[in-house]
Amino acid sequence: MVLIDQDGSGPGGSNQMAMMVLLQSPRAEVLGITMVSGNAWEPEEVQHTLRMLELIHRTDVPVVPGAIFPLVRTEEESKVQQQLYGTFPWYGAWGDLAATTSRQPYHGPYVVPKLAEGEPALKPLAEDAAHFLVRQVHAHPHQVTIYAAGPLTNIALAITIDPHFAELTQGIVIMGGSLSPQTGDPEFANNPRHEFNFWFDPEAAHITLRAHWPRIDLTTVDISIKTGFTKEMLGEIARSPNPGAKYLAAYTGEFYYLWDELAAAAWLDPAIITKEEKLYVDVDLTRGPFYGDTLSWTSANKPQLDLQLVHVQQDLDLPRFNKLFVELMKEPPQPGSPVN
Amino acid sequence: MVLIDQDGSGPGGSNQMAMMVLLQSPRAEVLGITMVSGNAWEPEEVQHTLRMLELIHRTDVPVVPGAIFPLVRTEEESKVQQQLYGTFPWYGAWGDLAATTSRQPYHGPYVVPKLAEGEPALKPLAEDAAHFLVRQVHAHPHQVTIYAAGPLTNIALAITIDPHFAELTQGIVIMGGSLSPQTGDPEFANNPRHEFNFWFDPEAAHITLRAHWPRIDLTTVDISIKTGFTKEMLGEIARSPNPGAKYLAAYTGEFYYLWDELAAAAWLDPAIITKEEKLYVDVDLTRGPFYGDTLSWTSANKPQLDLQLVHVQQDLDLPRFNKLFVELMKEPPQPGSPVN
Repeated sequence: MVLIDQDGSGPGGSNQMAMMVLLQSPRAEVLGITMVSGNAWEPEEVQHTLRMLELIHRTDVPVVPGAIFPLVRTEEESKVQQQLYGTFPWYGAWGDLAATTSRQPYHGPYVVPKLAEGEPALKPLAEDAAHFLVRQVHAHPHQVTIYAAGPLTNIALAITIDPHFAELTQGIVIMGGSLSPQTGDPEFANNPRHEFNFWFDPEAAHITLRAHWPRIDLTTVDISIKTGFTKEMLGEIARSPNPGAKYLAAYTGEFYYLWDELAAAAWLDPAIITKEEKLYVDVDLTRGPFYGDTLSWTSANKPQLDLQLVHVQQDLDLPRFNKLFVELMKEPPQPGSPVN
Repeated sequence: MVLIDQDGSGPGGSNQMAMMVLLQSPRAEVLGITMVSGNAWEPEEVQHTLRMLELIHRTDVPVVPGAIFPLVRTEEESKVQQQLYGTFPWYGAWGDLAATTSRQPYHGPYVVPKLAEGEPALKPLAEDAAHFLVRQVHAHPHQVTIYAAGPLTNIALAITIDPHFAELTQGIVIMGGSLSPQTGDPEFANNPRHEFNFWFDPEAAHITLRAHWPRIDLTTVDISIKTGFTKEMLGEIARSPNPGAKYLAAYTGEFYYLWDELAAAAWLDPAIITKEEKLYVDVDLTRGPFYGDTLSWTSANKPQLDLQLVHVQQDLDLPRFNKLFVELMKEPPQPGSPVN
């Protein structure tokens, strides 16, 4: 059983593919999708996700509206801070998405532009993400894994509402953080500790990383940049007659790192990860140039604080991951799923 | 013409070898050595440096006492902060040197333990480092390079005393900072932006990096860890009958990265550096876990502030560097040097 907590991209984008890894696997029971602002504003993401579920024939999975804004960081302050601390290449909902993707130019939080893939008839639940998360975990104690691949605002809210939330899960899988990517990609060379999900809501990442989960698995920038979505992979997926593959063939177009997809796939098949290190991980909450950057320690140099050991993924069996990913994108809807 | 601003190690240690790179080169005129606490306390360093000058027959070079404490960071606060932010493997004068080197256990700032290489008869100048630096640069306008291979306290004091100090030099060579070392050495994997000289006096590093130097060359951790002092190199040096080589053969024993030596050698022979990048560089002054860590930007993402472009060294011709380094260690005292 898994609860998907996710930000969203445009139709068929990376975040949608990551959700499909779990939605199309016969080994995962998705109890629901909670949404959070990050790569886009949450209200727009909800509509894209509802429409995706219609198109891939999974309208049985509830979509639950979550946090539109981070706990503390604000769009306005971050703009002013750029004058002092410089700029990053990616601001998600706060940036001009048209500048670097095929998506919409900047718009405000409550604006939902017309959907290229069509408007959904499906509606989200009339419950907020944090309470839905708490309710589901209490309904299935010690059986649910949280897959959290966006900013961690909803997860931090659930932890704060219910201090036993983390302990009652089976664990959490997080896409977030960056340690020391071994790459020539200039996006990371000058910011080895910067990663968008932790940056967007540093306080939420801190709250989440400090909670007493039975297990924490972390997919960082370091391992994510060893993956990549290619036109060849899309060509293979497009050969499938199933609705998920048809949806991707029609709408996807971001050939980039498979960050969230890897986090999801590694939960389904842990053998994808060939090397990991157990580290204590936290986030800088000092409101300076490194605000939201990743902190990590070994047991030899950790602070004298109640920090949690994290399974930090370091290397992968790339052919095995690519094969599983492409196979899942080609899968038919799970048995018992309604046909739209 | 060069002014050496340097912290110090034990007899024949890395900092001593770096000074010898400049002292033994026929291409450098060393106007003086200003000392600063860092790898050891300044009063102890002064004695080791005076004795080194005696043993290598360069008592013509004045040694000038400099800052014993950083501008803002304190030993006491840093100890308390370890509980919150964890520990680093190296604290220089503030650590127990006996734990990781052949040097003395921890002692206070004004204690000078007995020197293994003998006590110097030579005395330091009765002038402080900052004023000496200002006076020398005014005496030789636009002709002096500052070689700064320790914490930058003395340099920051000189800049603050005389706002034209930096402009009147020919440039500054700094050993400091860390961007994203590509290494498996665990010392750097969990702290890619941490480097001791910047960390020890962050405010001084910030003042220095913001000043209007004609040119700034930076030797970071990233390139330094591509070098290393070996027993083979020492064996080759020990074949020389000259006093510098004899001093090293008798006292050196740290087979580690050649950080400061590279900064000095690359100034003498710029062809040692095969790759550099021009970046804007600064230091985090936020008093959190990244206090003193290196900030860097390209022109594409820099803050809207008066930052200086730095020549950040990235790769080197290692055989060329090793050859020059070993040759210089074997050199006789410069012509005209007094014979002790």
